[in-house]
Amino acid sequence: MARVVVEVMPKPEILDPQGKAVTGALDRLGFDGISVRQGKRFELEVSGELSQERLDAIHKAAETLLANTVIETFVVHVEEEFVADAAVGAVEKASA
Amino acid sequence: MARVVVEVMPKPEILDPQGKAVTGALDRLGFDGISVRQGKRFELEVSGELSQERLDAIHKAAETLLANTVIETFVVHVEEEFVADAAVGAVEKASA
Repeated sequence: MARVVVEVMPKPEILDPQGKAVTGALDRLGFDGISVRQGKRFELEVSGELSQERLDAIHKAAETLLANTVIETFVVHVEEEFVADAAVGAVEKASA
Repeated sequence: MARVVVEVMPKPEILDPQGKAVTGALDRLGFDGISVRQGKRFELEVSGELSQERLDAIHKAAETLLANTVIETFVVHVEEEFVADAAVGAVEKASA
């Protein structure tokens, strides 16, 4: 089991109505001087070992399904604590 | 100018229909063995110096406006590169 996080944000040149709405709401509530852009965060629990092929597949999935790359940018990163677990799993598998 | 990121995720015990939909779609497209939970990511550009008071206000804003703490958890973190800039700004201000 590994955990991979995909962060998707609207590109800087793209209007972000949700972010604009949040910025306006914050301002009205007295939290001024804060400009907000809103994106998405996906936490993926991946079963089995996190091989390079598996990571490539996740990257492809992020590119085609999770983000719309015309208007959004995305970042894929593996959560370290789970990498350690995966590594331990791999070692156990190897020694079995 | 400082950048603060607020990450909002549905609590583990809460159903996550968006995440379920994405999980199903990934599976149908051949990306199997991946379970997805979907949350939100807010990037806040904060004008001026990022004082402790300002950070507390942002934490309050995240708690009351950005996240629904009944069903969601949130994490606030300051982007390091911008902290450095803020610190430089603070030093400049102190030495002026």
